[in-house]
Amino acid sequence: MTDLIPTPTVPAPDVLRCAYMELVVTDLKKSRDFYVDVLDLQVTEEDETTVYLRSMEEFIHHNLILRQGPVAAAAAFSYRVRTPEDVDAAEAYYRELGCPVVRKKDGFVTGIGDSVRVQDPLGFPYEFFYDVDHVERLAWRYDLYAPGALVRIDHFNQVTPDVPKAVDYMEKLGFRVTEDIQDDEGTVYAAWMRRKPTVHDTAMTGGDGPRMHHVAFATHEKHNILAICDKLGALRLSDAIERGPGRHGVSNAFYLYLRDPDGHRIEIYTQDYYTGDPDNPRVTWDVHDNQRRDWWGNPVVPSWYTDASTVLDLDGNPVPLSQRTDDSEMDVTIGADGFSYTRRENADSSFGEHSGANDGEDEFKLGHQL
Amino acid sequence: MTDLIPTPTVPAPDVLRCAYMELVVTDLKKSRDFYVDVLDLQVTEEDETTVYLRSMEEFIHHNLILRQGPVAAAAAFSYRVRTPEDVDAAEAYYRELGCPVVRKKDGFVTGIGDSVRVQDPLGFPYEFFYDVDHVERLAWRYDLYAPGALVRIDHFNQVTPDVPKAVDYMEKLGFRVTEDIQDDEGTVYAAWMRRKPTVHDTAMTGGDGPRMHHVAFATHEKHNILAICDKLGALRLSDAIERGPGRHGVSNAFYLYLRDPDGHRIEIYTQDYYTGDPDNPRVTWDVHDNQRRDWWGNPVVPSWYTDASTVLDLDGNPVPLSQRTDDSEMDVTIGADGFSYTRRENADSSFGEHSGANDGEDEFKLGHQL
Amino acid sequence: MTDLIPTPTVPAPDVLRCAYMELVVTDLKKSRDFYVDVLDLQVTEEDETTVYLRSMEEFIHHNLILRQGPVAAAAAFSYRVRTPEDVDAAEAYYRELGCPVVRKKDGFVTGIGDSVRVQDPLGFPYEFFYDVDHVERLAWRYDLYAPGALVRIDHFNQVTPDVPKAVDYMEKLGFRVTEDIQDDEGTVYAAWMRRKPTVHDTAMTGGDGPRMHHVAFATHEKHNILAICDKLGALRLSDAIERGPGRHGVSNAFYLYLRDPDGHRIEIYTQDYYTGDPDNPRVTWDVHDNQRRDWWGNPVVPSWYTDASTVLDLDGNPVPLSQRTDDSEMDVTIGADGFSYTRRENADSSFGEHSGANDGEDEFKLGHQL
Amino acid sequence: MTDLIPTPTVPAPDVLRCAYMELVVTDLKKSRDFYVDVLDLQVTEEDETTVYLRSMEEFIHHNLILRQGPVAAAAAFSYRVRTPEDVDAAEAYYRELGCPVVRKKDGFVTGIGDSVRVQDPLGFPYEFFYDVDHVERLAWRYDLYAPGALVRIDHFNQVTPDVPKAVDYMEKLGFRVTEDIQDDEGTVYAAWMRRKPTVHDTAMTGGDGPRMHHVAFATHEKHNILAICDKLGALRLSDAIERGPGRHGVSNAFYLYLRDPDGHRIEIYTQDYYTGDPDNPRVTWDVHDNQRRDWWGNPVVPSWYTDASTVLDLDGNPVPLSQRTDDSEMDVTIGADGFSYTRRENADSSFGEHSGANDGEDEFKLGHQL
Repeated sequence: MTDLIPTPTVPAPDVLRCAYMELVVTDLKKSRDFYVDVLDLQVTEEDETTVYLRSMEEFIHHNLILRQGPVAAAAAFSYRVRTPEDVDAAEAYYRELGCPVVRKKDGFVTGIGDSVRVQDPLGFPYEFFYDVDHVERLAWRYDLYAPGALVRIDHFNQVTPDVPKAVDYMEKLGFRVTEDIQDDEGTVYAAWMRRKPTVHDTAMTGGDGPRMHHVAFATHEKHNILAICDKLGALRLSDAIERGPGRHGVSNAFYLYLRDPDGHRIEIYTQDYYTGDPDNPRVTWDVHDNQRRDWWGNPVVPSWYTDASTVLDLDGNPVPLSQRTDDSEMDVTIGADGFSYTRRENADSSFGEHSGANDGEDEFKLGHQL
Repeated sequence: MTDLIPTPTVPAPDVLRCAYMELVVTDLKKSRDFYVDVLDLQVTEEDETTVYLRSMEEFIHHNLILRQGPVAAAAAFSYRVRTPEDVDAAEAYYRELGCPVVRKKDGFVTGIGDSVRVQDPLGFPYEFFYDVDHVERLAWRYDLYAPGALVRIDHFNQVTPDVPKAVDYMEKLGFRVTEDIQDDEGTVYAAWMRRKPTVHDTAMTGGDGPRMHHVAFATHEKHNILAICDKLGALRLSDAIERGPGRHGVSNAFYLYLRDPDGHRIEIYTQDYYTGDPDNPRVTWDVHDNQRRDWWGNPVVPSWYTDASTVLDLDGNPVPLSQRTDDSEMDVTIGADGFSYTRRENADSSFGEHSGANDGEDEFKLGHQL
Repeated sequence: MTDLIPTPTVPAPDVLRCAYMELVVTDLKKSRDFYVDVLDLQVTEEDETTVYLRSMEEFIHHNLILRQGPVAAAAAFSYRVRTPEDVDAAEAYYRELGCPVVRKKDGFVTGIGDSVRVQDPLGFPYEFFYDVDHVERLAWRYDLYAPGALVRIDHFNQVTPDVPKAVDYMEKLGFRVTEDIQDDEGTVYAAWMRRKPTVHDTAMTGGDGPRMHHVAFATHEKHNILAICDKLGALRLSDAIERGPGRHGVSNAFYLYLRDPDGHRIEIYTQDYYTGDPDNPRVTWDVHDNQRRDWWGNPVVPSWYTDASTVLDLDGNPVPLSQRTDDSEMDVTIGADGFSYTRRENADSSFGEHSGANDGEDEFKLGHQL
Repeated sequence: MTDLIPTPTVPAPDVLRCAYMELVVTDLKKSRDFYVDVLDLQVTEEDETTVYLRSMEEFIHHNLILRQGPVAAAAAFSYRVRTPEDVDAAEAYYRELGCPVVRKKDGFVTGIGDSVRVQDPLGFPYEFFYDVDHVERLAWRYDLYAPGALVRIDHFNQVTPDVPKAVDYMEKLGFRVTEDIQDDEGTVYAAWMRRKPTVHDTAMTGGDGPRMHHVAFATHEKHNILAICDKLGALRLSDAIERGPGRHGVSNAFYLYLRDPDGHRIEIYTQDYYTGDPDNPRVTWDVHDNQRRDWWGNPVVPSWYTDASTVLDLDGNPVPLSQRTDDSEMDVTIGADGFSYTRRENADSSFGEHSGANDGEDEFKLGHQL
């Protein structure tokens, strides 16, 4: 963890929440079919090159943009800030950091006003805005709900080579770590960070980056996620299911990972927990705990570790990758020399003992809650 | 709406969330049976006169205190604040308001440190604290979950005669209104206000007050609430079900109201929506819309309007009531001269038209979203 | 219980299950909107006067027919029999009983072949058929499932003045009683009878008859039923909800009662239990047990007791009613002299005792299981 | 398919349903912990060597017996028959087949009376009984329900080398095939057969046999199955999860496979469909359809194909295995020369086309429904 991102002298913008992602897709018709006909996201508006989508409980213009383009990529991770002045603050903050910064008073996309886009120190295209068109919150429109209705955007997930460096940068930006995965040597494999009081608005996953790992939408209940799987099966699109459904250890949420027609990864997610207190206990998971990423111990497929989406710079060009130099989670857990375990070797794993709690020296346990 | 509560010159404390309620119960054994054996709240600790309970996802010492006493009452509506200094701020704020104020550096109850209790201008016993013992967050302890597991404290609900006055006072304290019920003349029957980004941390319900209408706990899913009803039936305690289960119009949450052995009202609640943006649209419901309190149009039982718990002053004495002078919601909706409707009279209510949306002049509709 | 229906000398037909109901509706467009657009039943085929509907897991042509007609009524309670010869058996059986009988080798309705219709001794239009067109079983078509998808026809419910007489007749026809409601004097208020191994294929409800009380469709899970309520709310059709949702005592199923545009009552129902063993214990409920019809003790609305649909004779004329002479359930439970209770008066109803079981003399209990 | 089992001249017994399985376990304490403390089956009675367990909706004495013994094995697949005389019929039927037969008027186990046990022509220990002790049906005892409550025994699953031979034998015994897995050459890999009107009371899975593949219990809803997984995670027993949870193609049920402390496989299962009509369409799945065993296309773990429990003969000795000579499903689907696919190669798999139905020549489809 060397070469930390400097701390600007100007204050960080007050970020409310992750708000939307802009995806470049190579076949807009296919992508629209996937997000609208299969996943039942709601179309706020659309034209020949762009579709603006939102979830059932959203009142801002969109949570996802599909934009036709030559190369599949993530073009913007967009956060809403608390006030119009926070857009100024964001601009000043990143200018001091020496990042590429573009300010547009009329916004970069339909429905959003005054905004700033930056290529942040980790290489990601971040956007900050306050001004946005309000649209009907469809929360009460049960006549429009599908069995797998997506009700909120929940979080982003980013791939970056040096997780501690990324965490330090995000903490300076005002994010708080809620959970992470480490090993006994202190290598950090991933970290979850929030502004709104859920487990995260974004997570940093160790790997060659910058890349976009996934964007996540929430459902109300677990059966909604199962319904998405059932529908994909009925449409003979089960190949779109990459991993899950399952229960995460980290976040305690119920999850499903899909791959869209361009390979962009979408998570469907429900039921993490409130994290809004300043002293919310951080949960640290051992990378060798095979329940950390799936509470039921089901294996993580390799593609989930290796694949991620290209991100674009502010000129729309793919950002070249830097390689991770720390150990990779996949290698230490499912590689030739790796190992995974549910219980420590000498643990008495007799049935009927409640070993899930933090109560045993010799048993594997839920990560230390600081 | 005359005689508003003055605005103190000192800043309001930064309230995080409703944190716990202290209830005085007249038969501790019976109450413990109800909250622990029936509702499966988790005991953090207890002694002969007091039981400290928490929900599955909580990491602070308790969300509910049952304290043996001579008269059933609510002794404290307790809020957590963001920093230790916010307790000082709360003390100064209420001292300037001229309210009874007691500060205890060691806290009023087990598990909580430096706290201030006030009898607020509306007559309610409010507490503010930051310092609290951390306990195990049982979120991952599925071996302890019951079918109707309560996972979070969600909100309080208070009865007060003058709702606009109460709202004005709460807004000065930093709360934001998310929804309310009004009529065409502007009479306000109830209002919902939040600090954490849910529909509410507390609500003000018009009626003779100050009284405690209910305290609410959240479940993960709707079937958890149904399981509580089923269990009450099996225990031949179905009399404890006062209203519901049902879907609220206001808040869009799924709900159930129970009465504990002393008649204290408990709501079980799940799946309202995110309200954390500063420009979150307020939803105003017409008092004559019979889907405002139950989206399915099921009637509200009179006891739900008329009954509420006594609150105590800082000396432990019941606070005398002031009468509501505005119209009562029960009278205008289920009284002799009242009326409720699903659709406006001249609406074309043919099946198949989607009339739930805000799209028709002559159809009854979801309250105006500001 | 006098004047029992005679026992024919010929054997009764071997009935498989309730299969479909034919409803006469006065505004086909409105009814189609209700059953197709709101309740999402699947259209097998339709023309200008008739709509043939089925549930998601059905493979026979239809479970419900909507037929345009001058007077809202139930035109046929149709049962499927095990073999083609059982249609002959049914014809012979009812001819011996002296009932009006019409046999049509080509069937009375589209999709059904050789059938016999009778006006049975209780006055109801019963149909028996074996030959039927097979259609796609949509069980795997999750792309077609709505949040409140109806997956099976479950049962009929008939209003008849003399329940013991009706039960005797149905038992001779091969039905078995699974549950009933009685009082200490032996008055029988209702009885549930099955051929397929669920709680019922039809039930007899005491009242002026013959009338059709309701036809029931099953969902997979309880949340599907809640979704129907939510959708009705969104469409501002909550008036269609007559009773529920709730948990039945009788049958242990989760339920909802709706009224269609003509007032025909539809039940949505899920999760009763297997009853296929010959010695399946009958459950007898006390009419004064207020958990018998709603396990949570929620009251039954009077219209549920008083309203029911006209039935037609084989010429299509409304069948005149005979009055019930036994006590009415509504009168003894919610009338001036009636009473309902959860526990017997001298029961120790302390919290925490499990009084739902058949284990206490002085506690109210689940009806005796024979 | 040579050497079919002969057809006896005497009639087959009238089997009602699979009723219970007797398992020999090597550590009764550990097994009891698993089935009672983890899976929450209800203890009807127990002594030092035997535990009798039942599901929540059962009224017969038990659905599962755990008996301490030297070698883990399945000692009896027990079916209930319709009448006492059917036990005589079963005895005569298997005596004519020349099988080992033992009749005990007082039953082989506690709670069951007059019974016959046979080692059937496939080598399995089958039991037939009618007389049984009735116990409390706990269906209404929601005070006893766990989040993952098991409510019914659903089916057995048997491993046998020659599936067509086994199917022929079972059909003669009165079972009906509801679904099967074949390939284009007509090799049959597995078949599902029922008496009660669900997808099966037992299934025949091709492999070296006779062995017991699994015994299955039903829950009410899908979330109940997820709750079992969550609890296993909390107890750090996630190793017990072998496969799933997931949606089956075959049966359309939601499933989970567990391994008990001896490696006996238990399925948790919910929501298959009604099959009680004599012309219920059989569904034939292509062995190369990768949605046949998991509708979401998730892979089947090899142990699920290879592992199964020893069965005992009537003297309590392990029955030696016969090898399967037909292709093995594992080899043709996940072996070196095998392949699995969701769509046929030349299918147009564009998103948005509904290809799940039986409507395309060139698209992979749900197996032909006869």
